[in-house]
Amino acid sequence: MPVGHQIFLVASVVISLLSFGFAGWLYAWVKKQPQTNARISEVGGLIRSGANTFLAKEYVALAKFAGVAAVLIFLFLPTPVWKNEISQNLTMALAYIAGTVFSAIAGKIGIQVATIANMKTAEAAKKGIRPAFMSGFRGGAVMGLAVVGASLLGVSLVFYITGNTAALLGFSFGASSLALFAKAGGGIFTKTADISADLCGKVELGIPEDDPRNPAVIADNVGDNVGDVAGMGADLFDSNVASMTAALVIAATLDKAAGGKLNVSMVFCYAAIGLLASIFGIATARIGKKGNPTRALNSSTYVTTAVFGVLTAIATWAFDFEWRIWGATAIGLVVGVLIGITTDFFTNDDKKPVRNVAKASESGPAFTILSGISYGFVSALPALAGIGISALSAYKICEPLGDGYAMFGISMAAVGMLSIVGMIISNDAYGPIVDNARGLAEMGDLGEDVLEITDTLDSAGNTVKAITKGFAIGAAGLTVIALLGAFVSEVNVIATELGMQLIKVFDIMNPTVFFGLLVGSAIPALFSAMLMLGVDKNAQRMVAEIRRQFSEIPGLKEGREGVSPEYDKCIEIATHGALRELIPAGLVAIIATICVGFIGGVQAVGGFLTGNIVSGLLLALFMSNSGGLWDNAKKYIEAGAHGGKGSDAHKAAVVGDTVGDPFKDTAGPSINTQITVVSLVSSLMSTLFLTLSLF
Amino acid sequence: MPVGHQIFLVASVVISLLSFGFAGWLYAWVKKQPQTNARISEVGGLIRSGANTFLAKEYVALAKFAGVAAVLIFLFLPTPVWKNEISQNLTMALAYIAGTVFSAIAGKIGIQVATIANMKTAEAAKKGIRPAFMSGFRGGAVMGLAVVGASLLGVSLVFYITGNTAALLGFSFGASSLALFAKAGGGIFTKTADISADLCGKVELGIPEDDPRNPAVIADNVGDNVGDVAGMGADLFDSNVASMTAALVIAATLDKAAGGKLNVSMVFCYAAIGLLASIFGIATARIGKKGNPTRALNSSTYVTTAVFGVLTAIATWAFDFEWRIWGATAIGLVVGVLIGITTDFFTNDDKKPVRNVAKASESGPAFTILSGISYGFVSALPALAGIGISALSAYKICEPLGDGYAMFGISMAAVGMLSIVGMIISNDAYGPIVDNARGLAEMGDLGEDVLEITDTLDSAGNTVKAITKGFAIGAAGLTVIALLGAFVSEVNVIATELGMQLIKVFDIMNPTVFFGLLVGSAIPALFSAMLMLGVDKNAQRMVAEIRRQFSEIPGLKEGREGVSPEYDKCIEIATHGALRELIPAGLVAIIATICVGFIGGVQAVGGFLTGNIVSGLLLALFMSNSGGLWDNAKKYIEAGAHGGKGSDAHKAAVVGDTVGDPFKDTAGPSINTQITVVSLVSSLMSTLFLTLSLF
Repeated sequence: MPVGHQIFLVASVVISLLSFGFAGWLYAWVKKQPQTNARISEVGGLIRSGANTFLAKEYVALAKFAGVAAVLIFLFLPTPVWKNEISQNLTMALAYIAGTVFSAIAGKIGIQVATIANMKTAEAAKKGIRPAFMSGFRGGAVMGLAVVGASLLGVSLVFYITGNTAALLGFSFGASSLALFAKAGGGIFTKTADISADLCGKVELGIPEDDPRNPAVIADNVGDNVGDVAGMGADLFDSNVASMTAALVIAATLDKAAGGKLNVSMVFCYAAIGLLASIFGIATARIGKKGNPTRALNSSTYVTTAVFGVLTAIATWAFDFEWRIWGATAIGLVVGVLIGITTDFFTNDDKKPVRNVAKASESGPAFTILSGISYGFVSALPALAGIGISALSAYKICEPLGDGYAMFGISMAAVGMLSIVGMIISNDAYGPIVDNARGLAEMGDLGEDVLEITDTLDSAGNTVKAITKGFAIGAAGLTVIALLGAFVSEVNVIATELGMQLIKVFDIMNPTVFFGLLVGSAIPALFSAMLMLGVDKNAQRMVAEIRRQFSEIPGLKEGREGVSPEYDKCIEIATHGALRELIPAGLVAIIATICVGFIGGVQAVGGFLTGNIVSGLLLALFMSNSGGLWDNAKKYIEAGAHGGKGSDAHKAAVVGDTVGDPFKDTAGPSINTQITVVSLVSSLMSTLFLTLSLF
Repeated sequence: MPVGHQIFLVASVVISLLSFGFAGWLYAWVKKQPQTNARISEVGGLIRSGANTFLAKEYVALAKFAGVAAVLIFLFLPTPVWKNEISQNLTMALAYIAGTVFSAIAGKIGIQVATIANMKTAEAAKKGIRPAFMSGFRGGAVMGLAVVGASLLGVSLVFYITGNTAALLGFSFGASSLALFAKAGGGIFTKTADISADLCGKVELGIPEDDPRNPAVIADNVGDNVGDVAGMGADLFDSNVASMTAALVIAATLDKAAGGKLNVSMVFCYAAIGLLASIFGIATARIGKKGNPTRALNSSTYVTTAVFGVLTAIATWAFDFEWRIWGATAIGLVVGVLIGITTDFFTNDDKKPVRNVAKASESGPAFTILSGISYGFVSALPALAGIGISALSAYKICEPLGDGYAMFGISMAAVGMLSIVGMIISNDAYGPIVDNARGLAEMGDLGEDVLEITDTLDSAGNTVKAITKGFAIGAAGLTVIALLGAFVSEVNVIATELGMQLIKVFDIMNPTVFFGLLVGSAIPALFSAMLMLGVDKNAQRMVAEIRRQFSEIPGLKEGREGVSPEYDKCIEIATHGALRELIPAGLVAIIATICVGFIGGVQAVGGFLTGNIVSGLLLALFMSNSGGLWDNAKKYIEAGAHGGKGSDAHKAAVVGDTVGDPFKDTAGPSINTQITVVSLVSSLMSTLFLTLSLF
C-alpha cells in the first residue's frame, strides 16, 4: 500500500476515534442531566426494557441469519472455496461478519442513549425549551457520531488489514443485510404499535395521544426507538458504507492502472472531513433566543455543509487532488440540499400540497388518500431529475480525467451527498427522542406548559425529518448508480482473469437486459407490499387486543386510580409479528437477484439492478413524501383548520396519516436498503453469474 | 409494392368492410328490439344527449389541438419543411389527421349504439337474462367490430396509398394523441360523477345506487358511456394501430433488405385473421341454459383465441410464412391469456387478496387502503415477468432468422396478444351498457326481479373487465417494446441518410441514457397524478353541488312526487372539469419527451422511453389491479360478508372503492396510451433529436 494511502487511513482512524470520544462526552453529559419524576422513571424504564428486549430478540434472529450467510459466503464467494484459495473466502466471510457486528453496535449505542435522553428531555422541558432541546439534540448526536464513526472506522480497518476492495464489498454487504432486516423489523414494530394506538385511542375513544390508559402506548414509544433510532441508524450506516465502498472499488482500480495516483487517499480524506464537519456542526448547535428548534437544526446542517465544502477545497489544494473530482463532490452536496428543499415543498404545511390535501379531507377520507397519493407521485419528478442531472454532470466533469474517472465522479458525488450524514442522523434521531419525551411528559403529568414545549420540539423533528429523508434517498440513488459501476468493474476484473469477453455495455435493446429490467422494477413494489401487509396484519391483531383490554379490564376506560393496562401484551404482539415478517421480506429481494442472475447471467443482472434502482427510487420518493404530507395535513387540521380536531376533515386526515405511517416509516425508507443489498449481492456473486448462467 | 403485399392488403380491406357490415347488422338488430317504458325513454334520452353533448365539446377541443399539431407536423416532421420535399411533410400531416378522425369515428359509433343498447337491455331484462344478455353483448360487439375494423382499414389504406411506414407512424400518432385526450377526458368525467354520486347518495344519505333523486345519477350514466365506451375504444384503437405500425415498420425494413420476403404480408394476414376470429367469436356468443353471463363472455374469448391460432397456422402453411414468427405470435397470445388469469387472481372475490382486504376493512378504511395497495404492488410481478419472458422468448425464437427478425418477433408477439382485441372491446363495452341498463331499470321502476338480472349481468361485466384489462396492459407492454425497436430502426434509417454514426446500443452505463431513464420513469407518475387530482378537484365541486341541491330543493330528499333534481348542473360540472384538465395532462408527457430529446439527444430518449415503459407498466398494473380488487372487496361485503351493507367494514370498503375508481378507470388505463404517445413522438421526432440536441 502506498505511503500516501496509509497517512489518510491513519487520519481516518484517528478522526473516527475522535468522534467516538466526542460521542462519549455527549453521552455522559446527557446522563448527568437531572431526572427526578418517579412516574417518568417507571415508564421510561418500561420503554427502555421493551426496546432492549426487542433488540436482543431481533439480533438473535439476525445472528442466525448472518451465521448461515457467512457460511454460504465462505463456501461460494468470491468463487467456490474448493476452486479457490481458502484465505480469500475466509476474508470475505469475516468481513461480512464485521459489517453486521459494526452495524449492530451502532444501533445498540443509539438505543442506549435514546432511551435515556427521552427522560432527560421531558424533565428538562420543565425548565424551558433551550435545555430540553439540548438534551434531545445531544442524545441524537451520540447516535449520529457513533454511526458515522463506526462506518469510517470499519471501512478503514477492513481496507487497511486486507488491502483489497473485494473484502470491502463483503463488509458493506454485512452492513446492508443487517440494515435490511433491522429496518424491516423495526419499521413493522413501530408502525404496528403507532397505528393501533392511534386508531383505538385517538379515533375510537377520543383520548389524547400518549394517554397512559392506552395499552399500546408503551409499545408505541418502544417502536420509536427500535424503528426510528436503531433501524434508521442501520440504514444510514449502510448507505454511508456503501457509498465509500463504491468509491473505493473504483478508486483502487484507477490507482492500480495509473500507479502513484491518490484517488483512494482522496476518498478517505473526504470521508474524514465529512465526519469532522459533522462534529463541528454538532458542537456548535445552539437554539436561538427565540427558541426556534427547526432553525437550530437546519442551521447546524448548513454549517456542516459549508465547513465540508471549504475543508475539502483546502485539502484538494494542499494534497494536489483533482479539482474536477472536488467539483463532482460539491455537485452531489448541492443537489442533495436542493432535493431536500423540494421534499420540504411537498410536505410543509405552509405550502400548497399539504393545504390542498387538508382541504380535500373535508369531502372524506377517499379524497385525502387520492390527493396525497397524487402529490406523492408528482414529488418524484424533481428528485429523480435532480439525481439524473447530478450523475450526468459529475460524469461529464470527470470524464476528461481519463477512462473510469467519469464513474468515479458519480461515486464521489454520492460521497459528497453523504458527507454530512452525521448531522443528518443526529437530526433524525432527535425526532424519536423528543417524540418519546412528549409521551413521557404526558404520562408523567408534567402539565400543559411542558407539553407545549415538547410539542414544539416534536414538530421541528417532523419537519427536519422530511428534508433529511429526501436527502437520504437522493444519496442512495447516486450510491447505487456508483454501485452499478462497481458491479461492472468487478465483473470485468473477473472476466479478464477467466479470459472471457469483457462486458462493455448493458444494451436496453438486448431482451435479456430488458427481461431483467422488468423483473427488477417489480421487486421494490413486492418488497414494500410485504412490509406493509406485515404492518397491516399485526396492527389488526393489536387493535383486537386493545379493544379486548378496554372492554375486559374494569375501570381502564374511565382511568380509575390504580388500574393500568397490560402494556406487555402489546409489546409482545409487535415483537412477535415483526420478527416473523422481517426475514421473508428481506430474503425475497436477495432470492430474486440470485434467480435472475442464474437465469439470464450478468446481462440480465445489469438490467435487474437498473430496473430495481429506477422503480425503487420512484416508490421510495412517492411513499416517503405522501406519508410526510399526510402527517402534516393532519397536524395542520389539528391546529384548527377545516374544523380542527374532531371534525370530519380531521377524521379523514387521520385515515391519511394512518396509511402514511407505514409508507413513510416502514416501506419507503426500507427500499433504499433493499436496492443497496441487491447491488451488493450482484457484485459479490458476479463470478458465479458470469460462469453458471442458463442463457 | 410487391403483388403479394397487395393481395393481403386488399383482403384486409375486404375483411374490415365485412366487419363494418356485420356491425351494421348487429346495430340494426339492437335498434329493432322493443322499448316501451316512457320513463326509461326519458332518462335514456337524457343520458344519450348528455353523452353526445360532452363528446361534441370534447371533439371540438381536440380538433383545435389536432389542428395545431397537424400544422406543427407539417412544418417540422419528419424534417423541417424548408429543408425537405413538401409532399413528405404533407403526407405526414394528413396521415396524422386521418388517425384522429378514424379514432373519433370509432368512438362516436360506440356511443351511438351504447346509448340505445342500454335502454333495450333494461327492457329485455323483463323477459329474462338471455334476451337481456344478447342486447348488451351485441351492443358492445358493434363497438368492438367498429374499432378493430377501423384500425385495420385505416392502417391498410394509409399503407396502400403512401407505400411507406413513416406515414403509418403519423397515422398511429394521430390515433394515440386522440386516445390520450379521450381517455383522460372521459376518465375524469366518469369518475367525477361516479364518486360524487356514490359519496352523497349511497354513503351520506343511504339511498340506493342509481336512485333518481340523486342529482349526479344521469352524469354517472353519461360517464359510463364517454369514459368506458368512447374512451376505452379510443385506447384500444390506439393500441391496435400501434402494434400493427410497429410490426409493419420493422417488417418493411426486413422486406427491403431481403427483396421478395413476405413479412409485411404476414402482418396484414395475421391482423385480418384476428378480425375474422373476433367476428366468429361474436357471432357464436350465446348465454347457456344456466344463464351464466361470465361464462358466455369468457368462452367466446376462448373460441376467438382458438380460431385465431388455427387459422394463422393454416395461413402460415399455405403462404409459406416463417413458422418461427407464428411461434412468437402464439407465445404472445398465450402469455396474454396467462396475464389475464393472474389479474383475475388478484381481483376475484373467490381468492385470497379480495378476501383479506375485505377482512382488513373491519379495522377501518386505512387498512382497506394499505392492504389493497400492497396487493396491487404484488400483482405487478407476475405480469411484468410474463411480459419480459414473452419478449425474451419471441426474440430468441426469431433470432435465427437473421438480423432484425428478433425484434420483429417481439412485435408479432404484440400483434398476437392484440389479435383478439375485437372480442376484448366487445366484452369491455358490454360492461357500461349493462351498468347503464341497471340504472335505467332502477329509475324506470322495473322491479326487483329485473334489477336482479341486470345486477348479474353487471357483475359479469366487472369480472371480465379485470381480465381484459390485464390483457390490454400486457399487450401494450409488448407493443411499446416493439415501438422502441421501431424507434431505433427509424433513427438508423435517418443516421444512414445523414451519414452519421449508427446507434448500435443504448447503454445503461451511459449517464445520458441513465438520466433519460430516471426522468422517463417519473412521467407516468406525474401524468397519473394530474388525472387523479383532476378527478379529486372536480368531484369536490360536484359533491358540494349535490349537497346544495339536497338542502335547497324542497322535497328532493324525501322523493316527493314531481320533484326532480337539476341533473344538468352535475353534467355541466363534469364536462367543464374534464375539458379543463385533459389538455395539460396529455401535453405534459409530450413536452417532457421533447425536452429530454433536445437536451440529451437520441441516447437520452432511448433511456427515457425505457424508464417510461418500465414505470408505466408497473403503475398501470398496480392501479388497475388495486382498483379492481377494492371494487370487488366492496361487493363481497355487500353480499353479506363482515356485516354486510351498512357495517363499518362496508363503509371502509366504500372508501377503498372510491380511491380505486380513478385508479382503475382514469389513471391506470390511461398510462398505456401515455406510453404509446411518448414512443411515437420519439420516433417521429428522431431526425430532430439526432441533429439538434444539446449534448
